[in-house]
Amino acid sequence: MAIVLGENRYGKSRVRVMKVRREGARHEIFEWNVEVWLTGDFRSCFEDGDNSQILPTDTMKNTVYSLARACSAASMEEFGIELVTHFIATNPHAQSAGVRIVSTPWKHIDGFADAFTHASDKYDTTTITLSRDGIRSVSSGFEKLWLLKTAKSAFAGYMKDRLTTLKETHDRLFGTLATAEWRYSGTDLDYNALRQRIEWALVTTFAAHDSLSVQQTLYAMAKAALEQVNEIADVHLVMPNKHCNLIDLSPFGQDNPNEIFVPTDEPHGSIEARVSRSAIGS
Amino acid sequence: MAIVLGENRYGKSRVRVMKVRREGARHEIFEWNVEVWLTGDFRSCFEDGDNSQILPTDTMKNTVYSLARACSAASMEEFGIELVTHFIATNPHAQSAGVRIVSTPWKHIDGFADAFTHASDKYDTTTITLSRDGIRSVSSGFEKLWLLKTAKSAFAGYMKDRLTTLKETHDRLFGTLATAEWRYSGTDLDYNALRQRIEWALVTTFAAHDSLSVQQTLYAMAKAALEQVNEIADVHLVMPNKHCNLIDLSPFGQDNPNEIFVPTDEPHGSIEARVSRSAIGS
Amino acid sequence: MAIVLGENRYGKSRVRVMKVRREGARHEIFEWNVEVWLTGDFRSCFEDGDNSQILPTDTMKNTVYSLARACSAASMEEFGIELVTHFIATNPHAQSAGVRIVSTPWKHIDGFADAFTHASDKYDTTTITLSRDGIRSVSSGFEKLWLLKTAKSAFAGYMKDRLTTLKETHDRLFGTLATAEWRYSGTDLDYNALRQRIEWALVTTFAAHDSLSVQQTLYAMAKAALEQVNEIADVHLVMPNKHCNLIDLSPFGQDNPNEIFVPTDEPHGSIEARVSRSAIGS
Amino acid sequence: MAIVLGENRYGKSRVRVMKVRREGARHEIFEWNVEVWLTGDFRSCFEDGDNSQILPTDTMKNTVYSLARACSAASMEEFGIELVTHFIATNPHAQSAGVRIVSTPWKHIDGFADAFTHASDKYDTTTITLSRDGIRSVSSGFEKLWLLKTAKSAFAGYMKDRLTTLKETHDRLFGTLATAEWRYSGTDLDYNALRQRIEWALVTTFAAHDSLSVQQTLYAMAKAALEQVNEIADVHLVMPNKHCNLIDLSPFGQDNPNEIFVPTDEPHGSIEARVSRSAIGS
Repeated sequence: MAIVLGENRYGKSRVRVMKVRREGARHEIFEWNVEVWLTGDFRSCFEDGDNSQILPTDTMKNTVYSLARACSAASMEEFGIELVTHFIATNPHAQSAGVRIVSTPWKHIDGFADAFTHASDKYDTTTITLSRDGIRSVSSGFEKLWLLKTAKSAFAGYMKDRLTTLKETHDRLFGTLATAEWRYSGTDLDYNALRQRIEWALVTTFAAHDSLSVQQTLYAMAKAALEQVNEIADVHLVMPNKHCNLIDLSPFGQDNPNEIFVPTDEPHGSIEARVSRSAIGS
Repeated sequence: MAIVLGENRYGKSRVRVMKVRREGARHEIFEWNVEVWLTGDFRSCFEDGDNSQILPTDTMKNTVYSLARACSAASMEEFGIELVTHFIATNPHAQSAGVRIVSTPWKHIDGFADAFTHASDKYDTTTITLSRDGIRSVSSGFEKLWLLKTAKSAFAGYMKDRLTTLKETHDRLFGTLATAEWRYSGTDLDYNALRQRIEWALVTTFAAHDSLSVQQTLYAMAKAALEQVNEIADVHLVMPNKHCNLIDLSPFGQDNPNEIFVPTDEPHGSIEARVSRSAIGS
Repeated sequence: MAIVLGENRYGKSRVRVMKVRREGARHEIFEWNVEVWLTGDFRSCFEDGDNSQILPTDTMKNTVYSLARACSAASMEEFGIELVTHFIATNPHAQSAGVRIVSTPWKHIDGFADAFTHASDKYDTTTITLSRDGIRSVSSGFEKLWLLKTAKSAFAGYMKDRLTTLKETHDRLFGTLATAEWRYSGTDLDYNALRQRIEWALVTTFAAHDSLSVQQTLYAMAKAALEQVNEIADVHLVMPNKHCNLIDLSPFGQDNPNEIFVPTDEPHGSIEARVSRSAIGS
Repeated sequence: MAIVLGENRYGKSRVRVMKVRREGARHEIFEWNVEVWLTGDFRSCFEDGDNSQILPTDTMKNTVYSLARACSAASMEEFGIELVTHFIATNPHAQSAGVRIVSTPWKHIDGFADAFTHASDKYDTTTITLSRDGIRSVSSGFEKLWLLKTAKSAFAGYMKDRLTTLKETHDRLFGTLATAEWRYSGTDLDYNALRQRIEWALVTTFAAHDSLSVQQTLYAMAKAALEQVNEIADVHLVMPNKHCNLIDLSPFGQDNPNEIFVPTDEPHGSIEARVSRSAIGS
């Protein structure tokens, strides 16, 4: 029996950078929280303490800063592609380089060219990997998108066993704090425009859907995005069921016609799935 | 020497309630996180374990739910006033009742009458107290409002001692995560409309101000609110200085004309002040 | 009517510093999260943007670092006293200087002189203020101390109104995440030794007390600390009631003899009080 | 082209349960935060809204409560095994059932049989999966273990490129907030005793190791655990490098002989690896 190094990676996390672009009086800002990492055969480092193939994570951080200044990326996806391309070129021992960027949702304060506030609490994300042999993956998405619908949501007809106490309902609140990630299948894409179309498909499908379960709505949302945007190969959605429980007011002599609820954080349902485009027959 | 009970209070925190108001197909939702408390002479409880004057905090929670159903408050301020009025009436030993409500920023998804998402990450607040002799205080405000300006912000001419290393600047980023609270001086107010006007005064003053310091901008914001809205007596602002530090790119042979910054959470400046309306001569 | 500046303060928050003291092979570490602030008549700064009386918060940060190196304080209280004394001396416009320090709970890994882990999730605190005329206040305490007792806790005999549904109990779980602060009345104290004695009084009283309510136990804890330690003038305790709710297992044909509970974070009771030493007759 | 459902799972998260075991006057408590999930062919549910194969997550929650009462598991691993065994038996459409448990670190207050506080801020974890064909995986570990060493840590001899500014060091602080997970290879194990031995190997190796890099120490820790405990097949460690930066005090005329540091949360290095036991030749 021997002891061997398996999968491993190292890099720098929480590298925050803000870029201010000034076109005359009009300013734009981009705030990105960047994580970069390398994978490969770093056995001599782990086993022997030989650092000669280790690029310090401090250098990775400097690289994020330097490329943020040098590059003219129109999207965080393009910035991420520049980063992984750089790291594969400069780290001969790396088998792959990866980057994940989370973008803060700044928008202009109405009527001002150089003052900003947050647009929502949704954060946009992208994850990009590049292998030594040139295989590139670009996935984008978002975190922390609150969605709630007060109509068109039921849950009934489910399995029951001796431990089931849940009542069937044909009119419940359906709330979730959604995370999404979709994988792009093409290159030279207009990532900002595609993101808008995908998010529109996801959000409006959530709102319009006659929901029989979280699962069914999740699937309908992903399907809509895939049908409306050809440039993506799959969509992965994580939709915790943030239960809003109807309060029993009868002890106080009051009715409660689906009006007063307790929103809860725990326990919560967890539903997630990947929905893919597939060649017929495959 | 004796040991005596001093200031004390008890109550229920994090009572979450969501109310759905349906007017035909159009739904409105209100999500409130409520804290209620009582103060008074509860010595026998603390010293002797006599609970006969203690209304259980569980009952306070039930009261929030029951009044949420029964009342037709048009604002969280009016709901809070109903709550403290109830608690003063039903708790003869209480010298004062208080409530604090934090409201979740839901808005309709564009084009849908019964589907919602978060409007921003700002949370609206109100704090209301009522004393046994009828003195009522209503203060409202907000938490977690991100503000950032990329122009019209300087910091120079400050004190220097042997430990000062900060460089003067006439063009820095100025970011803050603002908390505000203003105290209403009248009764029978349209709290929702007043909130909009006060927030407009605060935010647009932040954006437009030629800032020489966080202190000066904070004061200008509060002054604008007091000048534009007669119904408030004072404004308290807490504006941490969320520093965005200019990165030195010269080690990499690059300049940095106020373009690339590191946003930081710590350490941070902390500036807070109350600005009041005062009778001349007082 | 005029608009006037009221109470105000400014300073630096989240200044983190770690000090390593090496005595031969034995190392000790102190990790402190420091907040410093000044109050006084800073009207010209707020109203006119005159910064000539403003010591930059960046300098305050540097001062924390520099004094951490220079001073030989045996406790965070003594370090805090050095800081406020420095700031009062160097800021002629300040009416008072304050500091709050939160200490990370490091302890040695058993058997090692230079390796450490966290002892608990309790954080020790101190808050010190010094006014221009020499009045000094030193209060210490802790945050985030989890306490739970599974016996000797009842809650019965309380007020009931038409909204009360809580059942009386003579055997419940009593859990809290306690915050404490006590004010020292003397000078030249051995703060580390006193802290240990006060914490011992608080914790063992919690554990031993036959509790009729959170209020009664809170009072007994504070009273014990005041009786056992003469050097403190009062104790302030904040003890949220972190409810553990007995689960009704009867739908599943099971009993539940006070054995299976759901720990909850919300809603929660909130009980706080200050208990003071008082001259008889006062 | 068609659109198809890919990998998916659903379940219940943040199911909190506390069990009090009373043996005469001596009480023991177990607080577990449980997540359970199922995977399988749930296409009809996602695609058609057919819920007939969906066990409600509310029932999963009830099951956790009911089994917590019924079972006599001596460890959270055994409790988890009971849970997945139950869910595979009662959900014919599930291909696998999983459970993850995070345990709160309660310990007795010294000298008391029925009062408790937290032992540290480390949380123990276990993740268990069972497939329909009987393949079972039990992995255990911990989260949030703070480790810091003030000696025997160097970082030098690394790659340098034009963006490298980091100085080599032979005496730095090495701090991390470690997450570990090891996979058990046998059955009928004494999980509590094994956990203690594995944690001892990890922690004492961290403390004793002459570290040339985080990577090398991580590998040494995992290797020690594998060498000392035969019942585990691999160890996965995640060790962010929580940098403590030496402060330059020379602007203030002071030296800093490795004594005063700024602990930071961001940016931070991220190092993770799996180390496995492998048959020679494989």
